[in-house]
Order: sequence, then C-alpha cells, then structure tokens
Amino acid sequence: MRVSELVAQTGVPLATVKYYLREGLLMAGDATSATRAEYGERHVHRLVLIKALSGLGLPIPKIRVVLQLIDHPQDSLFDTLGAAIAALPPYVDANAAEFPRAKSVLDRLGQIYDPQFVAVAQLESALAAAEGIGMPMTGERIDAYGRHIRGIAEADLAPIPPSTESAIEYAVLGTAIYEPVIAAMRRLAHQDLMSKMLDPNRKAPTS
Amino acid sequence: MRVSELVAQTGVPLATVKYYLREGLLMAGDATSATRAEYGERHVHRLVLIKALSGLGLPIPKIRVVLQLIDHPQDSLFDTLGAAIAALPPYVDANAAEFPRAKSVLDRLGQIYDPQFVAVAQLESALAAAEGIGMPMTGERIDAYGRHIRGIAEADLAPIPPSTESAIEYAVLGTAIYEPVIAAMRRLAHQDLMSKMLDPNRKAPTS
Repeated sequence: MRVSELVAQTGVPLATVKYYLREGLLMAGDATSATRAEYGERHVHRLVLIKALSGLGLPIPKIRVVLQLIDHPQDSLFDTLGAAIAALPPYVDANAAEFPRAKSVLDRLGQIYDPQFVAVAQLESALAAAEGIGMPMTGERIDAYGRHIRGIAEADLAPIPPSTESAIEYAVLGTAIYEPVIAAMRRLAHQDLMSKMLDPNRKAPTS
Repeated sequence: MRVSELVAQTGVPLATVKYYLREGLLMAGDATSATRAEYGERHVHRLVLIKALSGLGLPIPKIRVVLQLIDHPQDSLFDTLGAAIAALPPYVDANAAEFPRAKSVLDRLGQIYDPQFVAVAQLESALAAAEGIGMPMTGERIDAYGRHIRGIAEADLAPIPPSTESAIEYAVLGTAIYEPVIAAMRRLAHQDLMSKMLDPNRKAPTS
C-alpha cells in the first residue's frame, strides 16, 4: 500500500507518519522509486502500537525503548518484560538508595521482586505520599490489597500470548490500559458497598 | 498563632496562604488588630488538606467543591460522598447520553450505581480505550476484577471515620492516594507471578 493508505487505515496523520519514519520508530517501506515506497501489514501494526503507546502517555524515547525490546528482545523473557514495563509512566526517581516502605510491604507479602525494577520505586513513592497526608497503610490493608491484587494479576496473566513479540505488547498495553479501569471500578464498588451499608434492603436496579 | 507560624507548621508558602485566604478556601483568622490575625488548629488542618488535594491534581475550583461539602454537607451522606469523589480526577466528559460498556460491566456484577456518578463515565472512557487498542475486557476478566476490586473496596471502607467531616476527607483522600499504590502493587504482583511461572523453584528473598 501507499503511504496515503497507511494514513487512512491507521488514522495517524501523514506528518506524524513521516516523523516516526525519520525517528526510526516506524521501519522504512520498500522503495519502489526515488519518491515512493510500499508499506504492508507490519507497518500498520507498528503504527497502531505507537499510537497506543503515545495515548498511554509515553514520550518518544520511552516508545523507542519498547519497540527496541520488541525488535531485539533480551535472552530472558522475564528481563525483557521488566525492561518494557519500566518504560511506562509514572516516572519517579528510581535512583534512591533504599525503598524501605516498598520493601516492607513486599517482604510482608512474601513476593519475589527485583529491587532495580522501577515499580519498587513507584510503590515507595506512592506509599510515601499516603504517609505524607496522614494515611499510612495499615497491616490489614496491606494484606487485603496484596491478596486481591494478586487475584487481579493472575487474571491478567492467564491469557498471555505465546510469542515474545506479542507477549511484550500485551504486557505493556495491558498493564497500563487497565489501570484506569481498576480505578473506576474501585470507586463504583465503594458506591455499591456504601449504598448497601446505608440501606441494606436496596437492590441492584433491574435492567 | 501568627500567620508566620502557620507557614512554618504546614510548609505552605506565605504567598500561597494569602491566595487561599483571598479565594475563601482558608477561613479568615480572628483579627487582633488592623493588620494582624490569629490562627488556630482548624487553620492548620484546612491548609494541610488543601495541600493534599492540590498534590492529588485537583484544580482550585474542584478543591472548593470538596471544602464546601465538608463545611455544608448535604442531608444524605451517600450523596455528599458521591459529590466529593466526583471532584477527583480524571476529568472525563460525563455528559454522554449513555454508557453502554460501563452499564454492561456493572449489570453483570449486580452492582448498585447512580448513572449520574462520574465514575460511570470514567469507567466507560477506560473501557473504550481498552477496546480501542484491541484489548476489550473479556467476561472472565470482568468477573475476576469485580470480585477482587470488591475485596479491596471492603478493606477501604472498614475503617471509615464516624464524623461526616472526617468521612468526607477520608473518602476523597483515600480514594485517590491509594490508586498509585494499587497500580504499583499490581505491576509487582505480575513480576512475582512471572518469576514463579518461569522458575517454579525460585523462593522469595530472605531478608
């Protein structure tokens, strides 16, 4: 297909496609003349992926990290996925020497973790913020959260795709895209529980 | 205490304190002369709360909504909490006529919800984004998420404070402050599960 059809199929504007080509994020098409190139399904797939990553808030250098891992995965799938997930926001200072709050939670839950994994720094930062407004996590809350978040993570990992390339895409997109789903569902679960606490006879609306 | 001590105790700069006073977010102190006023614990508490809400990403008009609900709660605690939570980000278009994806999830889970509650629009927007990148929620995922998010919400509501004022503060701050904790813990649970899938004999580090 011509570049105009690539634009039509993906909804990515021509100027943006050209920018991704210059930046090396989108692989070049097959040149058919000095000014024309032919594109295929892998270009469509790559453009849709870049668009999704951009929509998740990743700046260009972080998108590049994910794409390079897809094109050149490390020997260990575990390390490759860890490096790809580390490209996702929020971007916190991961160079702190210690993560005492995060370490305490993870040890309490008996979880295996790589202290270099950026989610450890993200957890430390989130726990420090909760402490900062006078709402540190109690042991009861850590245990309940740990148990139920593990259940969510198991559901996430159940359908993990077989190829390394699709596993990386699934992990990166699935990690980020469901975070706002979980946040909204939690707010709605609060409303449902509050509603039943305040009026135990209330029923779910039939529809 | 003098305004300078208010600044010292809360870490909020003087210019910001004066701005909050002008905007009516912080109640005036008791005037002791034409140019001096005396502040007390309720001013410290209010400033710390405004600082926390601002840190959670609420713009001034949304902070005002929360404070007005604390100062003038509606008759129904349920409605008051709903209105306060609605002041939290993310700010999505809540004026859509229908929320078919969110409604389908909530009906499947048998949850009570107010269709006007902004979290319904937030869920719709999050589900549409997942669908948009080709990862719509399956029924299995909805069920697993629903069950475990309910468990998290129960842990959240267990220690809800008795007074209306503190319940509103707890609900607003607790809803938002634990969202990044949950996101980071989910990423770490993925790592733990992946690690055990790839090497079942691996043990948690002893420390």
